[in-house]
Amino acid sequence: MRSFRKELSLHVKARMSFVNITPQVAAAVAESGVQEGLCLVNSMHITSSVFINDDERGLHEDYARWLEQLAPFDPSPERYHHNRTGEDNGDAHHKRQIMGREVVVAITAGKLDFGTWEQIFYGEFDGRRSKRVLIKIIGE
Amino acid sequence: MRSFRKELSLHVKARMSFVNITPQVAAAVAESGVQEGLCLVNSMHITSSVFINDDERGLHEDYARWLEQLAPFDPSPERYHHNRTGEDNGDAHHKRQIMGREVVVAITAGKLDFGTWEQIFYGEFDGRRSKRVLIKIIGE
Amino acid sequence: MRSFRKELSLHVKARMSFVNITPQVAAAVAESGVQEGLCLVNSMHITSSVFINDDERGLHEDYARWLEQLAPFDPSPERYHHNRTGEDNGDAHHKRQIMGREVVVAITAGKLDFGTWEQIFYGEFDGRRSKRVLIKIIGE
Repeated sequence: MRSFRKELSLHVKARMSFVNITPQVAAAVAESGVQEGLCLVNSMHITSSVFINDDERGLHEDYARWLEQLAPFDPSPERYHHNRTGEDNGDAHHKRQIMGREVVVAITAGKLDFGTWEQIFYGEFDGRRSKRVLIKIIGE
Repeated sequence: MRSFRKELSLHVKARMSFVNITPQVAAAVAESGVQEGLCLVNSMHITSSVFINDDERGLHEDYARWLEQLAPFDPSPERYHHNRTGEDNGDAHHKRQIMGREVVVAITAGKLDFGTWEQIFYGEFDGRRSKRVLIKIIGE
Repeated sequence: MRSFRKELSLHVKARMSFVNITPQVAAAVAESGVQEGLCLVNSMHITSSVFINDDERGLHEDYARWLEQLAPFDPSPERYHHNRTGEDNGDAHHKRQIMGREVVVAITAGKLDFGTWEQIFYGEFDGRRSKRVLIKIIGE
């Protein structure tokens, strides 16, 4: 069994944004030399997500608006008790639960085994600082 | 290490519906010959889900109603900018994020290692055409 | 390839509550002897979740309030058709979908490969009885 580990570093300038990290994950799969296996990609932070969907700008606008409705940004400690800690990112911890922490993708014949439109995104909900994404690959 | 790959093909006639695919996944596990490992099951599309819950008709009615409240079908490009592309399925991209893309299930002693009520479902949110589900198994 | 399986047993006295199970999962990883691999942790029930977020009391209060808004407890069969079965836990099946069934965590150098604040939680939405969590580890 082979295993491979790589961290990506991201610095998103907006509070909320979506970044296509498929090329970096595909490069890690190639670098790993794994032909058949599984590739885990997860945010190492609890106010951001890794998810798979479409690389379409209108959709990302829709996601941002929808997540803001489901869990509005509000720095006060009334809406989010979490903000009693002095943080202002209670909303980001909620948005991240909707979009998910991680994806697991099959590796087949040395490549990410994807449907036609699948792309991997990093979803940032509390940006303007450096964050990390973990790629862990196991297989043969 | 063994690996095994299989695609399922689904054609759901309704726009939204839930299909129990546990028998097909169990058959793939048996076919793989893997005794101890992990089984990834994911939608290869970005307007449908794979998730685990109860095989109970009332619950599925509840899910459909609830998802329609959280992300209503609306072909106009006002609610979903994604529909500016000419698509009418912006809602389906949102419903899929709530229900998830994939499940990873343990394989123990050659079988899906499930709790009493766990069943694997394909959740369709933009049906009336053929879709694919990927099963990838690794283990020994 | 090594594989390792362990069940945790939980009995939460409240209907809804969050329990940090990171120490038990870390102990299972140590017991497995796996140095490089993947660790699946999933609820074996369909009215509870396993997820990763912050161990902060205010945040857990926020999650409970938010989930109650998204899928309110209501034992009547009008809101949740699932409750026509005689159950009163229709809401719990919805809350669990928001928070997720499972996490997959990388194992690196014999330990859970975590970001600074990542902690694993069991999320109970229909407590007051015994439930099980499955830990499955594969690797080398």
